[in-house]
Amino acid sequence: MTPHPFDEAVALDAIDAEAGRFAGRTHPAWANMVGPYGGVTAAQTLAAVMAHPKRLGEPLSLTVNFCAAMADGGFEAIARPVRTNRTTQHWIVELQQGGETVTSATAVTAIRRETWAHDEHAIPAAPSPEMLPAMRRPEAPAWLQRYEMRFLAGDLLETLKSGPADDSLTRLWVRDEPARALDVLSLTALSDVFYPRVWRRRGQPGPAGTVSMTVYFHAGAQALAEAGPWLLAQATGQAFRDGFFDQSGQLWSAGGRLVATTHQTVYFKA
Amino acid sequence: MTPHPFDEAVALDAIDAEAGRFAGRTHPAWANMVGPYGGVTAAQTLAAVMAHPKRLGEPLSLTVNFCAAMADGGFEAIARPVRTNRTTQHWIVELQQGGETVTSATAVTAIRRETWAHDEHAIPAAPSPEMLPAMRRPEAPAWLQRYEMRFLAGDLLETLKSGPADDSLTRLWVRDEPARALDVLSLTALSDVFYPRVWRRRGQPGPAGTVSMTVYFHAGAQALAEAGPWLLAQATGQAFRDGFFDQSGQLWSAGGRLVATTHQTVYFKA
Repeated sequence: MTPHPFDEAVALDAIDAEAGRFAGRTHPAWANMVGPYGGVTAAQTLAAVMAHPKRLGEPLSLTVNFCAAMADGGFEAIARPVRTNRTTQHWIVELQQGGETVTSATAVTAIRRETWAHDEHAIPAAPSPEMLPAMRRPEAPAWLQRYEMRFLAGDLLETLKSGPADDSLTRLWVRDEPARALDVLSLTALSDVFYPRVWRRRGQPGPAGTVSMTVYFHAGAQALAEAGPWLLAQATGQAFRDGFFDQSGQLWSAGGRLVATTHQTVYFKA
Repeated sequence: MTPHPFDEAVALDAIDAEAGRFAGRTHPAWANMVGPYGGVTAAQTLAAVMAHPKRLGEPLSLTVNFCAAMADGGFEAIARPVRTNRTTQHWIVELQQGGETVTSATAVTAIRRETWAHDEHAIPAAPSPEMLPAMRRPEAPAWLQRYEMRFLAGDLLETLKSGPADDSLTRLWVRDEPARALDVLSLTALSDVFYPRVWRRRGQPGPAGTVSMTVYFHAGAQALAEAGPWLLAQATGQAFRDGFFDQSGQLWSAGGRLVATTHQTVYFKA
């Protein structure tokens, strides 16, 4: 069986696992216009935590800072558990190329215990993905071919045709293409799936790139495996000013469970 | 003139400024039930970045991970610029006590350049702070006496009297007490001003503590100085499950400018 391209992309080889040192590489199937798709880079930082022999529990939060464009090719991932408590563990991760940090991250892993539970941010009403047309953009960068996207609002192509929009909401059904069971790494990558909110507000594309991205995970491995593959995902910008905007997003399972919330600050020119 | 307690709290002494090493200490005026108020700890991590002689630009984003309870007394702050670009700079910060990391953080500083600007998340309609009663809780921990709070929704005392609420929104006017001009450090501290969202949903207090907090700054020093001292601040939980919930918040100037957006994941028992 051919491995799924996402599994190939997040595979790491141990250089010195006890020391948290791993070797990874960019994957052509996830290429963006310049360098790799940031969602996969984010997943690679978390993959180093997942591969560490001293890991406690499962990911609760991840913040990834895109320090520099990653060059196509190999990188070293260094994951360091800076504090291990009874039920939480704190991580600092760096991806380096040529000895320089190109990506930095912090993560928290935790042991989940059942408590009172409630999704206050409820899934929006939406027709099922089967009832919607898929976006096809064969000319787009490779990573966009790795996701099946069915837009409910704020479709990129429609946005670029209809000019500036009064809000920056994008809402879509999305899954890996080919379909793949959901896990914490693919959920991390999916959290970066939204095109720049400023494109929608301005009605035109322009230079933009994520500077820092945070993901809060609201489900463990078992719940995620049961949740996928389709996710209802949405994102909205809050403030655009002085070359940066922020974005907040939510990702729900088709069954209506909020599995991740995510936030970014993004560089733009306009 | 007596210095403002906040300025005392975030003051750092250089141990080796070029190496990014500074000495700080907890301040009794900011004590919480156990250890210091997390907002001041967050501000202390950013203070180390602000004090670093190689800093480029002003804070754009900050993620602070509360690894362990900080003991009352001294700490060492270590700020490391891991990457300096033309207009952005990436930082890793650790606060240590007894050689152990108690707080980790990443920050991005950036040079802002005027662009198209818009606050998509608009300030809610609200009466001015002068028209509202101040919350007085002299029996509460010291840090609560450092803020003047005038609630518009989700008042803690009302919450605890009226039982479980259908939403977790808290909205208030808030400023430093005594009043102080707003800057990026006090704005960081203010971003943690909300009591745990789960208290409001459950209608009762219980063990809870911030695990990781992110702040996106939408204003530089000059705009902040003009914006304060009153801020309209609000926060809402999104998902509560398995011992953790997340929260998203916004802070606007009285003039209606969104000056910061902030997010947390919080540990709770319920």
